[in-house]
Amino acid sequence: LIIGAGILGASAAYHLARLGAQVEIIDQNHPGKATLAGAGVVCPWATEADDPDWYLLYARGARYYGTLIEELRGQGETELGYSRVGALVLAEDRARLDTIEGRISRRIKDAPEAGTVRRLGAGEAKRLFPPLRDNLEAIHIPGGARVDGRLLAASMLRVAISSGATLRNDYVSLRLNDGRAECLGSDGRPIPADEIIVTAGAWAAQILALLGLRHPVVPQKGQIIHLHLPGVATSGWPVVLPMNSYYMLAFDDSRVVVGATREDGSGFDYRVTARGQLEVLQAGLGIAPGLADATHIETRVGFRPAGSAMRPILGRVPQIAGLTIGNGLGASGLTVGPFAGHLLAGVVMGEPAEVPLERYSPTGP
Amino acid sequence: LIIGAGILGASAAYHLARLGAQVEIIDQNHPGKATLAGAGVVCPWATEADDPDWYLLYARGARYYGTLIEELRGQGETELGYSRVGALVLAEDRARLDTIEGRISRRIKDAPEAGTVRRLGAGEAKRLFPPLRDNLEAIHIPGGARVDGRLLAASMLRVAISSGATLRNDYVSLRLNDGRAECLGSDGRPIPADEIIVTAGAWAAQILALLGLRHPVVPQKGQIIHLHLPGVATSGWPVVLPMNSYYMLAFDDSRVVVGATREDGSGFDYRVTARGQLEVLQAGLGIAPGLADATHIETRVGFRPAGSAMRPILGRVPQIAGLTIGNGLGASGLTVGPFAGHLLAGVVMGEPAEVPLERYSPTGP
Amino acid sequence: LIIGAGILGASAAYHLARLGAQVEIIDQNHPGKATLAGAGVVCPWATEADDPDWYLLYARGARYYGTLIEELRGQGETELGYSRVGALVLAEDRARLDTIEGRISRRIKDAPEAGTVRRLGAGEAKRLFPPLRDNLEAIHIPGGARVDGRLLAASMLRVAISSGATLRNDYVSLRLNDGRAECLGSDGRPIPADEIIVTAGAWAAQILALLGLRHPVVPQKGQIIHLHLPGVATSGWPVVLPMNSYYMLAFDDSRVVVGATREDGSGFDYRVTARGQLEVLQAGLGIAPGLADATHIETRVGFRPAGSAMRPILGRVPQIAGLTIGNGLGASGLTVGPFAGHLLAGVVMGEPAEVPLERYSPTGP
Amino acid sequence: LIIGAGILGASAAYHLARLGAQVEIIDQNHPGKATLAGAGVVCPWATEADDPDWYLLYARGARYYGTLIEELRGQGETELGYSRVGALVLAEDRARLDTIEGRISRRIKDAPEAGTVRRLGAGEAKRLFPPLRDNLEAIHIPGGARVDGRLLAASMLRVAISSGATLRNDYVSLRLNDGRAECLGSDGRPIPADEIIVTAGAWAAQILALLGLRHPVVPQKGQIIHLHLPGVATSGWPVVLPMNSYYMLAFDDSRVVVGATREDGSGFDYRVTARGQLEVLQAGLGIAPGLADATHIETRVGFRPAGSAMRPILGRVPQIAGLTIGNGLGASGLTVGPFAGHLLAGVVMGEPAEVPLERYSPTGP
Ligand SMILES: Cc1cc2nc3c(=O)[nH]c(=O)nc-3n(C[C@H](O)[C@H](O)[C@H](O)COP(=O)(O)OP(=O)(O)OC[C@H]3O[C@@H](n4cnc5c(N)ncnc54)[C@H](O)[C@@H]3O)c2cc1C
Ligand SMILES: Cc1cc2nc3c(=O)[nH]c(=O)nc-3n(C[C@H](O)[C@H](O)[C@H](O)COP(=O)(O)OP(=O)(O)OC[C@H]3O[C@@H](n4cnc5c(N)ncnc54)[C@H](O)[C@@H]3O)c2cc1C
Ligand SMILES: Cc1cc2nc3c(=O)[nH]c(=O)nc-3n(C[C@H](O)[C@H](O)[C@H](O)COP(=O)(O)OP(=O)(O)OC[C@H]3O[C@@H](n4cnc5c(N)ncnc54)[C@H](O)[C@@H]3O)c2cc1C
Ligand SMILES: Cc1cc2nc3c(=O)[nH]c(=O)nc-3n(C[C@H](O)[C@H](O)[C@H](O)COP(=O)(O)OP(=O)(O)OC[C@H]3O[C@@H](n4cnc5c(N)ncnc54)[C@H](O)[C@@H]3O)c2cc1C
Repeated sequence: LIIGAGILGASAAYHLARLGAQVEIIDQNHPGKATLAGAGVVCPWATEADDPDWYLLYARGARYYGTLIEELRGQGETELGYSRVGALVLAEDRARLDTIEGRISRRIKDAPEAGTVRRLGAGEAKRLFPPLRDNLEAIHIPGGARVDGRLLAASMLRVAISSGATLRNDYVSLRLNDGRAECLGSDGRPIPADEIIVTAGAWAAQILALLGLRHPVVPQKGQIIHLHLPGVATSGWPVVLPMNSYYMLAFDDSRVVVGATREDGSGFDYRVTARGQLEVLQAGLGIAPGLADATHIETRVGFRPAGSAMRPILGRVPQIAGLTIGNGLGASGLTVGPFAGHLLAGVVMGEPAEVPLERYSPTGP
Repeated sequence: LIIGAGILGASAAYHLARLGAQVEIIDQNHPGKATLAGAGVVCPWATEADDPDWYLLYARGARYYGTLIEELRGQGETELGYSRVGALVLAEDRARLDTIEGRISRRIKDAPEAGTVRRLGAGEAKRLFPPLRDNLEAIHIPGGARVDGRLLAASMLRVAISSGATLRNDYVSLRLNDGRAECLGSDGRPIPADEIIVTAGAWAAQILALLGLRHPVVPQKGQIIHLHLPGVATSGWPVVLPMNSYYMLAFDDSRVVVGATREDGSGFDYRVTARGQLEVLQAGLGIAPGLADATHIETRVGFRPAGSAMRPILGRVPQIAGLTIGNGLGASGLTVGPFAGHLLAGVVMGEPAEVPLERYSPTGP
Repeated sequence: LIIGAGILGASAAYHLARLGAQVEIIDQNHPGKATLAGAGVVCPWATEADDPDWYLLYARGARYYGTLIEELRGQGETELGYSRVGALVLAEDRARLDTIEGRISRRIKDAPEAGTVRRLGAGEAKRLFPPLRDNLEAIHIPGGARVDGRLLAASMLRVAISSGATLRNDYVSLRLNDGRAECLGSDGRPIPADEIIVTAGAWAAQILALLGLRHPVVPQKGQIIHLHLPGVATSGWPVVLPMNSYYMLAFDDSRVVVGATREDGSGFDYRVTARGQLEVLQAGLGIAPGLADATHIETRVGFRPAGSAMRPILGRVPQIAGLTIGNGLGASGLTVGPFAGHLLAGVVMGEPAEVPLERYSPTGP
Repeated sequence: LIIGAGILGASAAYHLARLGAQVEIIDQNHPGKATLAGAGVVCPWATEADDPDWYLLYARGARYYGTLIEELRGQGETELGYSRVGALVLAEDRARLDTIEGRISRRIKDAPEAGTVRRLGAGEAKRLFPPLRDNLEAIHIPGGARVDGRLLAASMLRVAISSGATLRNDYVSLRLNDGRAECLGSDGRPIPADEIIVTAGAWAAQILALLGLRHPVVPQKGQIIHLHLPGVATSGWPVVLPMNSYYMLAFDDSRVVVGATREDGSGFDYRVTARGQLEVLQAGLGIAPGLADATHIETRVGFRPAGSAMRPILGRVPQIAGLTIGNGLGASGLTVGPFAGHLLAGVVMGEPAEVPLERYSPTGP
């Protein structure tokens, strides 16, 4: 039984179903599901953060996309929104760009999937991403990719369901029953299950508290803007990373996404706000004035599952039988999620771990 | 501290603020909030259900509207969507109409606010509600009213806030701390409060379970359709009660509302469904074919807080200090809610109860 | 027959119906109808523009609201969104504020409905409109008002329809038939009518061209943002006029409206754009930072009917029998519209004009 | 210059751009654009209508998809929503099914792309389209296809624009200038062009009237419902044709579309109506009760360009220099449109016609 069908739960379901498990997925369909709002940048190598446990999974997550996408295509799944369009890393001054380039180079030594990184002049950068400001040099990472988290999660669920999994909409809770976790539907009735996997994102603490667990994941609100450039072929446009917490990326349907706010302490406040819009538009048009006349299609709001440490939480809860948790993917969950779901499935099925998981234990490293 | 700002929480906040209490209201703004979807029929006297504890509050709830609306208008509140437009009770055959009329007559003996009930011929009924089918006789109850639950709740909150109350968006949880209930924000931090009032509707069991309480309220999903008749003056149209779980009512802005499905066991499945729409449209156009060409504006979905018994739950939890619960208003909560909130405020402030509340205790009668 | 049911067509319909005429109204329900997007500021006295013909109607338009609102209330119409909340005129420096105050004083000599204008300190201004920046002095005009154009137009239509008028959704065209204007439905069939009144706003030139008329009204696009302040009682907040083409105003339902772009040469480009949003949010939060956390509900787009001269066009077309035009209300049509519709009704019914109309003739003054 | 960017205008633009022409496309982005609402059934062989001129293009249209899709994929276009999923033709009784099968067999003699048609038992039919009623036999046409008109038109436009075409949002009009057609923007300014192609769908008569042309195409309103089956892999589901003016088809994203009303004389009344919804849901759930629990995502409204004859209008207007018209695609325009646009491009470029076009002349055959 999987509680939560974001990118992580969907991946766990997909991998469990492939391993032959009988899977039931339950999701409350909350509009703030992070996976519905996530931008979809898959490009770990430029990041300034440097927690090694976190970076390990981040990088492995990006690499795993190669395998996963091929597998899904093999299952007849075509609408994934995934493409290795490359990434443009920008910086306001050349010195900073040099530093960043150094870091990237060190990091991609053992990441051939990142491709051959090189410097681009402002003109070249603008040719790749036409709305850019005129004078912006860039670093180009050919292996950078983008993915539509909605499509990818839906696709993994579909394949799981085709292999016998079931999906239900409900908000479920948990209780302790004789030392085991037990899941209850919103009608109060127990839902039988041998193993319970909680991939409930920013909401997980709510139900884990019912088992007496203090789970250190809180919602970090993000507002992200979707623009449309009528008639413009954007499908090959690279991801743009100005290294300042904002970014831009494009999808096949002439869509450009500009993200995102990072609002701590907002709770589950599911509202598009005046300042949120202003902040993102200012950042986006500042770097890419060519987007000024784009259509504003929508602003999405999602709650990133933000842990107290940067590294995700993945593994069995030792003191409670039949309970596994995956969470805390934060701002990089679309990258990490598919691989992390693969790991979770392994944990539950008792397969040997591809990555040492002790450091990601729900009880702390 | 009030958890949940539906009609019940809003009314509790309003009455507490008037009594001088320092009120904090927290609401997660769930799109399935019953008060956002509720139709707004306020006409208790025709119902076939006969639980006396329930009916007592139902009838008192309708009567209390007189007082409340006047008070709110006195505070400068104008947009309430309330109007005593009367009600038309319909039935497929005359015998059944006679039975119903008998029941109504008995009930309204001590309810002068219902007005003088009388039989209408089909023509007269159609004059009052022009989209009706041609051949439908009716019983007319002049005191029947309708209210816009959204506006009324918003108005009570506004007045509370003007008197010093605060409102915050968050999903909170509860825990036991030394025998007292304590409220935690989604960031895990305690929110200090002397008294906690849980008016969390269909979601209440989720957080009461954290205190070890089994709370017998589950969501009953309702889908309800809003139509628009361009240019038609509908503000005086009566409420239409065909006595078959469907109904129709009209608002000032040329809007006609047709409701509603009653879906048990749906959990928190927040989706407009094909069958839900079909069911309501068939019922509505069957009785009022004149609505065929109306614009379909929207279909709302809400979760009625359905208790295991019909009567509401209102009162202190004896075993936990500082905890009061109001819930279980089911399908009649817009009628009962304002009065019930008044009662809750009294409970918390230690005022003598206007109605004996033992039978509505959270621990059962 | 009235083509176009914006504020002007609705007012013409209302006044004609009151004068006993048999009225048919046809409207294509275009989403860019100016009346659906209009902010609703009714405060002519501070404007810097000084075309006297235009100002005459602008000022008379504001005055006429007194009469009209009373009449409509007398018909049982309650939802008009009209309130004389006063206006705050702001300016970046004191000298400019002095100039403006001088102009206002001269103008309101014969406009007692403007009330007693006076200067407010920054603190006082902020008390009236709490989200304001701290240091803004203001001029207060008590007679400034705001109106919800959608509600007002819908209300006038409703009353017209109750008096026998009919309303239909269609896009109609015109042709010359023996020197008379004739109206054709989109099915090509003539719609019989003694008199045709074209109040088709920004779209009028399209159909007047079919009669060989060159009509100098083009669309000026406006994007305008609606914010919501949960639980805040905004119904008494004044209109805020920073005298820079942007403005703010509030409605009863905790709504604050910030307007608006003025986009010439946009054609009928019905899109919310990135720059449009950024421009309005920057202007709004610049003056009223207290709106930062407000919910962004929607951005409306409307096409102002912008004439080549500032003054409106109101009157019979001399060379074509049975044809009257009302148009060109530009950025002040919600103020002028009701009165202008009253004048148009008079023209068609052959009543003596309250205002000399020669200068507003469709063939130019 | 192409006026109107529905499926027909987009195809004309695409083919003209490929032929090296300098193309400007103007579209008013009306929400009722037929191409935005069209279901996407591409299966001409079962139809009961028998106008031979119409059928000729209908069948050729379906065949042309093979070529076109390949070409577009060759240009890197992936999101087209096109798939040859096959079609299930249903009938209430076996005799009728026999008649239909006979007709199909005759028709597909020279249409190998239809594949090998055969009868399916009810069980087999239900395996292909699981929501079907239990007892429905069917005829299976493997070559039946479905396409997403929005995606296909957007894709053809994108390729045209990549080859140098331009796209603008505006509502334009026409006038005669010295015997030639001249196009005017909504600002009244002429837009220079050597050739004008009017592919303005249901709106064309409005602007052709400005040239003195009576154009016999009127809007036929269609309401069509989009459902979603969470987690269900629908991408291979066939088109379902119950031969009664309703139909069902599925897209990759777990979406099932049920269509559609055919509302004559509705004008441009862009509203979802109570009856429209009821009619389509009744038809859909009657045949496919398995859709009852599907999510209702949206109801789309579009105006089919319905000619007075069944056959389309394609060709130059003899009496006016530089003017070509394509229109009247009615209920089969998504099938015919791409091929018809190809023909139009040929007409304008003076290429020899692949199909004799006299019978489709704007002045009648
Ligand atoms: C604006 C924004 C931009 C982002 N951009 C990127 C990016 O570019 N690259 C990147 O790698 N990552 C990005 N992320 C991060 C990424 O989206 C998240 O880390 C990831 O989606 C988390 O997935 P999840 O499955 O853990 O949680 P979620 O997607 O939130 O899913 C959890 C699900 O569990 C359900 N649930 C919870 N409790 C219950 C219950 N009791 N019963 C039933 N169901 C329950 C919830 O309703 C929800 O559907 C972004 C996030 C945001 C918000
Ligand atoms: C379709 C429909 C039609 C109806 N028609 C009528 C009618 O005609 N007449 C009539 O009298 N009644 C009617 N009702 C019933 C009526 O709407 C409800 O009984 C009433 O609105 C219940 O109000 P409430 O305040 O108890 O709950 P709700 O309105 O559901 O409010 C509860 C609030 O608590 C919040 N909350 C829950 N948990 C938390 C938490 N942990 N933290 C923060 N916030 C939380 C929720 O998000 C919600 O906003 C109808 C209901 C429906 C669904
Ligand atoms: C963003 C914005 C803010 C504004 N703020 C203010 C303000 O604060 N104060 C103020 O006084 N004014 C304001 N205005 C101006 C005001 O809204 C307009 O001047 C006024 O609404 C114009 O009304 P109208 O009836 O002339 O045109 P419209 O409201 O545009 O109505 C014309 C109608 O005719 C219909 N029509 C056209 N052609 C046809 C046809 N052939 N067949 C059928 N129907 C047809 C159209 O579809 C439309 O519905 C604002 C305008 C905008 C856009
Ligand atoms: C509900 C529905 C279901 C359908 N299902 C199918 C199906 O299953 N299979 C099938 O083959 N066909 C189907 N059709 C038919 C098909 O959708 C239409 O025949 C086809 O889309 C017509 O395309 P068009 O390009 O001619 O017109 P449109 O798509 O209507 O495009 C015309 C465009 O011209 C623009 N325009 C008009 N006047 C002007 C102007 N003066 N200035 C600027 N722009 C202007 C309009 O705004 C519009 O965007 C369906 C149609 C509907 C409504």
